[in-house]
Amino acid sequence: MTERLETYFQSQRETHLAELQRFIAIPSISSQPAYKDSLIQCAHYTADLLHHAGMEHVTVLETGGHPIIYGDWLHAPESPTVLIYGHYDVQPPEPLEAWHHPPFEPIIRDGKLYGRGASDNKGQIYLHIRSLEAWLKTTGHLPVNVKFLIEGEEEIGSPRLLPYLETHLTRFQADLVVISDTAMLGENQPAVCYGLRGLVGFRIEVRGPSTDLPSGGVYGGAVQNPIHALVQLLASMRDEHGRITVDGFYADVIPPTPQEKAALAALPFDEEAMKARLQVKELFGEKGFTALERAWVRPTLEINGIVGGYYGESGKTIIPATACANVTCRLVPNQDPYKIMQQIEDHIRTHTPPGVTVTITEREAARPYVTPIDHPAIQLAASAYESAYGTRCYFIRAGGSIPVVETLSRLLQVPVVLMGFGLPDANVHGPNEYFSLDNFDKGLRTLVYYWRHLPDVWKKKSW
Amino acid sequence: MTERLETYFQSQRETHLAELQRFIAIPSISSQPAYKDSLIQCAHYTADLLHHAGMEHVTVLETGGHPIIYGDWLHAPESPTVLIYGHYDVQPPEPLEAWHHPPFEPIIRDGKLYGRGASDNKGQIYLHIRSLEAWLKTTGHLPVNVKFLIEGEEEIGSPRLLPYLETHLTRFQADLVVISDTAMLGENQPAVCYGLRGLVGFRIEVRGPSTDLPSGGVYGGAVQNPIHALVQLLASMRDEHGRITVDGFYADVIPPTPQEKAALAALPFDEEAMKARLQVKELFGEKGFTALERAWVRPTLEINGIVGGYYGESGKTIIPATACANVTCRLVPNQDPYKIMQQIEDHIRTHTPPGVTVTITEREAARPYVTPIDHPAIQLAASAYESAYGTRCYFIRAGGSIPVVETLSRLLQVPVVLMGFGLPDANVHGPNEYFSLDNFDKGLRTLVYYWRHLPDVWKKKSW
Repeated sequence: MTERLETYFQSQRETHLAELQRFIAIPSISSQPAYKDSLIQCAHYTADLLHHAGMEHVTVLETGGHPIIYGDWLHAPESPTVLIYGHYDVQPPEPLEAWHHPPFEPIIRDGKLYGRGASDNKGQIYLHIRSLEAWLKTTGHLPVNVKFLIEGEEEIGSPRLLPYLETHLTRFQADLVVISDTAMLGENQPAVCYGLRGLVGFRIEVRGPSTDLPSGGVYGGAVQNPIHALVQLLASMRDEHGRITVDGFYADVIPPTPQEKAALAALPFDEEAMKARLQVKELFGEKGFTALERAWVRPTLEINGIVGGYYGESGKTIIPATACANVTCRLVPNQDPYKIMQQIEDHIRTHTPPGVTVTITEREAARPYVTPIDHPAIQLAASAYESAYGTRCYFIRAGGSIPVVETLSRLLQVPVVLMGFGLPDANVHGPNEYFSLDNFDKGLRTLVYYWRHLPDVWKKKSW
Repeated sequence: MTERLETYFQSQRETHLAELQRFIAIPSISSQPAYKDSLIQCAHYTADLLHHAGMEHVTVLETGGHPIIYGDWLHAPESPTVLIYGHYDVQPPEPLEAWHHPPFEPIIRDGKLYGRGASDNKGQIYLHIRSLEAWLKTTGHLPVNVKFLIEGEEEIGSPRLLPYLETHLTRFQADLVVISDTAMLGENQPAVCYGLRGLVGFRIEVRGPSTDLPSGGVYGGAVQNPIHALVQLLASMRDEHGRITVDGFYADVIPPTPQEKAALAALPFDEEAMKARLQVKELFGEKGFTALERAWVRPTLEINGIVGGYYGESGKTIIPATACANVTCRLVPNQDPYKIMQQIEDHIRTHTPPGVTVTITEREAARPYVTPIDHPAIQLAASAYESAYGTRCYFIRAGGSIPVVETLSRLLQVPVVLMGFGLPDANVHGPNEYFSLDNFDKGLRTLVYYWRHLPDVWKKKSW
């Protein structure tokens, strides 16, 4: 990195961190209608960030939902065009009582910036904006052409992005997509992510009697209890060893190759350390696979939430009228979320206990995605990390889903490079989410290296 | 009934109903610490009711919990002494949104008085107070001696009543206990209840990882999900036909005799009408028993409430740190709640899935109870109903539990007569609880008949 850039980053560090904290302080919870105004406020804040960084044509695009932010800089005619994708919306912060500091009052402590969205994705998209601003401020130009696409509905499955992209594809056309919304392998263990799991999310609602009933009277024993029915239905979907028992669920799974299994086994992943960190006596899941394999190359079906009846500590002797559960499946190549959803609906239909009615509401769907590990744009990302971190970069997959990755790759017909700067224990969907300041600093330098060398890679491109 | 009493009830009806509404308006929710002051207010309101009705020695007895109200009238030396038990505490009203009118703003509509506690138990204990007041106001005396014991912890299992009774037994000694806290068979279908189920209630808490985790990352598939573990554990306790699969659960059950089965079958209970009322396609439960048998003479294990993770409609892709469920078993003679609890704990210990820790908290326990159906005090109750309702009275059992019934009978060594004036569909633990004004009116007249004739029955007593 040039001395001028280094000096710039150092001189601006406090200003940047303060600005990122203001970004995080906006409670842009896309899944909760009550926060609609905050989403709009956050959209405009994001647009201002792009504008002040030197991006042109900055626009808040109306989609019918939370807006998309666009901005570009297109004055490097010989160089490739990179589409940088990110999102300004965040997950709900609940349970609030588990946060040691309010989720929307970000605070820096022990080298970590705490707050909802600190890693996912405000901190990471902020690195992109500032890495480019630094180039522009210190040299007056950029080594690549860039377009920003920052949406506000990633955490609810990007429902309006696909239709919007389909009708405005030209605006976003690029040679490559770069996204920083994943985790590295660990502290000072940089990693390029070359695969993501897909997702299908749904809600099961079980209805029994028209009203809550006393569990005594003439009812307890005489009518089906919706919680029992739901519990039985959910238990029927997974065996005691963690294998999903929905017919056909694994039929299309492409198992990891021996080479990939070997590569996964070679990663410095410590199951004992994970157990200690999570305070569990043992890890758990499908037999015959390591924890990393289960999390990255095997599909899952997880109950994310369940509610029914009176769950206060004091108890209440009722048979409730309804019970609900939220479930998501993580999918791997070559599973199709719509086919999986159909298999689950079939399973529910054939396993619904008597005496209740079950309603299934599909909530989100995303296809799994893998980029070829030997793609030059992926290999360059590894070099960029190694330059900034001074240590070996790993190639990993991720257990999470970024629905837009597969969508962008398919629509634009270009590869997607996932350069994450989060950490596995950064609590990205839980309480006390944080962003490591070490990754804030090294992330800026990683990206600067990447922009500098991308044109050379592109000149030699042979894919 | 004497003309003077009839005239008295008619002239006082509006005053009585208004007073009962003020009684119901006090939110005496014993299970929620936030309502402690309301419980105290309600205790004093109850004491005032007794005092104004002409009871003597009215006292608010401190127990360390919600107080017990005592009052007596003991000036009929030749007559038996009746202990009238009731409770001024109520169940929580949640879910509030299911009430068509606020639960603590009672309202009369279409011959029904709506409000939490209207039937269970404020309306019914109120009938006792007013039936005796009417005697005293119109004649200056009572045909029997009476003692009132009105507690404030029935809905939380009467935890302080047993120790209090054990140390103050003389004060409550009587020849007979009368309780109105059960339901009749239906509208204008009076019934004496000669048996109650027992109860054991507990809470299961499943703990997994130390914090909520994303269902992606390196976690989804790698660690046990506490909701899955809870669901699997709960499903293991009941088979698909509704039979409880906890080892030894049915071992001590005394099955209904052929005569009792015949008597139950002869009751005008309409399963089709129940289905229609509850809006369910079918009733459900143990094979080989009718709905009434399942509700009255068979034990159950019901999940009353469950909660874990994020259960909002929008979803959240997490593996939660914990999941909880409240469970109660209804027990029949000769099941022992403590033995059943031990069997359940053993079951949970041997069925706990790997990767989680399970905590069981026992909440309440009550033994089942049956009074001999041919006891003269029971038979007189049937005559009293028939006199007031002008129709046949049935002998029934009930699926619910009034923990104090077995306690009072055992400690005082006397029979307990259950003369209920509730209705099966009065929503006593659910939203829109009500008390039928028809039963308000006929209940007063039933009780007056009972007090008048009890001394005669006692003179002839041969038990």
